[in-house]
Amino acid sequence: MALLRLFLLFVLGFWGSVAVAADPLPSWNEGPAKQAVVDFVSQTTTAGGKDFVPAAERVAVFDNDGTLWCEKPLYVQLAFAIDRVKDLAGEHPEWKTEQPFRAVLENDQKSLLDAGEKGLLQLVMASHAGLSTEEFEQVVVDWLATARHPRFGRPYTECVYQPMLELLGHLQAYGYKTYIVSGGGVEFMRPWTQAVYGIPPEQVVGSTIKTVFELRDGMPTLMRLPEIDFIDDKEGKPVAIHKFIGRRPIAAFGNSDGDLQMLQWTAAGKGPRFCLLVHHTDAEHEWAYDRDSHVGRLDKALTEAEANHWTVVDMQRDWEQVFASGSK
Amino acid sequence: MALLRLFLLFVLGFWGSVAVAADPLPSWNEGPAKQAVVDFVSQTTTAGGKDFVPAAERVAVFDNDGTLWCEKPLYVQLAFAIDRVKDLAGEHPEWKTEQPFRAVLENDQKSLLDAGEKGLLQLVMASHAGLSTEEFEQVVVDWLATARHPRFGRPYTECVYQPMLELLGHLQAYGYKTYIVSGGGVEFMRPWTQAVYGIPPEQVVGSTIKTVFELRDGMPTLMRLPEIDFIDDKEGKPVAIHKFIGRRPIAAFGNSDGDLQMLQWTAAGKGPRFCLLVHHTDAEHEWAYDRDSHVGRLDKALTEAEANHWTVVDMQRDWEQVFASGSK
Repeated sequence: MALLRLFLLFVLGFWGSVAVAADPLPSWNEGPAKQAVVDFVSQTTTAGGKDFVPAAERVAVFDNDGTLWCEKPLYVQLAFAIDRVKDLAGEHPEWKTEQPFRAVLENDQKSLLDAGEKGLLQLVMASHAGLSTEEFEQVVVDWLATARHPRFGRPYTECVYQPMLELLGHLQAYGYKTYIVSGGGVEFMRPWTQAVYGIPPEQVVGSTIKTVFELRDGMPTLMRLPEIDFIDDKEGKPVAIHKFIGRRPIAAFGNSDGDLQMLQWTAAGKGPRFCLLVHHTDAEHEWAYDRDSHVGRLDKALTEAEANHWTVVDMQRDWEQVFASGSK
Repeated sequence: MALLRLFLLFVLGFWGSVAVAADPLPSWNEGPAKQAVVDFVSQTTTAGGKDFVPAAERVAVFDNDGTLWCEKPLYVQLAFAIDRVKDLAGEHPEWKTEQPFRAVLENDQKSLLDAGEKGLLQLVMASHAGLSTEEFEQVVVDWLATARHPRFGRPYTECVYQPMLELLGHLQAYGYKTYIVSGGGVEFMRPWTQAVYGIPPEQVVGSTIKTVFELRDGMPTLMRLPEIDFIDDKEGKPVAIHKFIGRRPIAAFGNSDGDLQMLQWTAAGKGPRFCLLVHHTDAEHEWAYDRDSHVGRLDKALTEAEANHWTVVDMQRDWEQVFASGSK
């Protein structure tokens, strides 16, 4: 009888969890975007269905900046680089005259934006080098613990989108392997993606600077060089997906033209596919920007999404809540 | 009562499987090498033990050539490249005079070996380019289906070491994530590592050639360029481990000086560590080579293994059987 009770408890407990999980996306308003996500996951994971995908092939790739967390008013990594350039300026007198460093030291946001994505990445790389990989990780962890988003006043890791956390969790619960494929630096993301997104370091693909193996006082060390190894943006994203993952994703999530080729590469595979763009339309609770934005421009990809019937999330319409904390 | 019977069946069934799996390494002779492997896995996976390692951190890295499969008389990928250079020679008249292509076309094995590892990799890269990633995968699959090892007369994928297959399976059964970290080309390995080693494509790290994303007749395509991107050997191995995996392994398996830095990097981490070298000592059933070998030289790493008490497998002494098929 005790066994029977245990058995029933187990079965009912399981049934109970399923009932509780009936709405896997509570922060999404009912509508075509939410429905498309739920349908795709259901169709690709229902054994015997015509669109069933074996677990090993359930690969979903996510851009990070503007897709999983807030990228305004500046990329978070740029805010980090700015703080770090200011910290290191004493050791680099040449930065007083060299762009984009000068812009940082003079708080000249316009020149900083004029430097373009490549200039910004150079800034990031230069301000990130000269440390061992372990030292750099500690610098990132320390900065994230104290830095605050200028508008929301809370840690950047709390400026992640609640609906996207639910989407990640839903995919993970159904056996999807979720990857980040970001233009951001891989070593800027890995220290916190497991805790925040449930994505382990080995599933984070991003831009890299060169590192070199050396024995430092006899201790094997990887030193970070001030040299860009790879920029994981635009055409680089499918290249990196192929190099790091070696499988074509069946689902891709982005928010800007930098994600277009990743979505094209995903969409062009055989079998069921899912492509989604987050369209920032909620100036009240976050930001509203698209075709003319400096950061996170969404122009060509938006046009292509419409032509290909990719899912476009209208943040204001489709999300009941933007962040885990805070109103809406 | 039916429930009780079900319950007992379940418990006894489980107990039964454990009993059957009592020797996870049946092709290993009893001795210090086998014992070291069994002890390490047990110590790192026994909850509450002082050397327990959480599942997420159980990362084990394996060299491929000479560690998991036979690398004599030539690296398998070199045999593939030779066949492919011969196939493509009609389109490349310049190869008649350029080394190392000339050596291939004239079956001049000495000049081929003199070209060194870098020359050989160049040969491999040049003979592997000009195709899309999907076309190249098909070429690899087709070649492996028909090519035969010159001494053993069977497919190369059957020239894998049975004791190492058991070791991989043992680690995998205990929650280890097993990676290949090879000097070989990543796209030469990925098509078959799941079937042969139980290692999925995303856990294969290796040398790469550059690829470029383009729309070919409107179809998103990754084209392989005749340009080396990264050579995953020696100092490159810890660099690649950090870049691709982002975690320091706790166990590393190699067989040559090309694996030394990978073992050093692994050994230098905190907590329990395991480093193993396969020493080829069985000329009767495979090959015997070490400090003076052209292919798979094991010299500095052997010295360092002795100094650091890493586990060294003496193939003749420690392995009861070398290959899955064939005698011993």
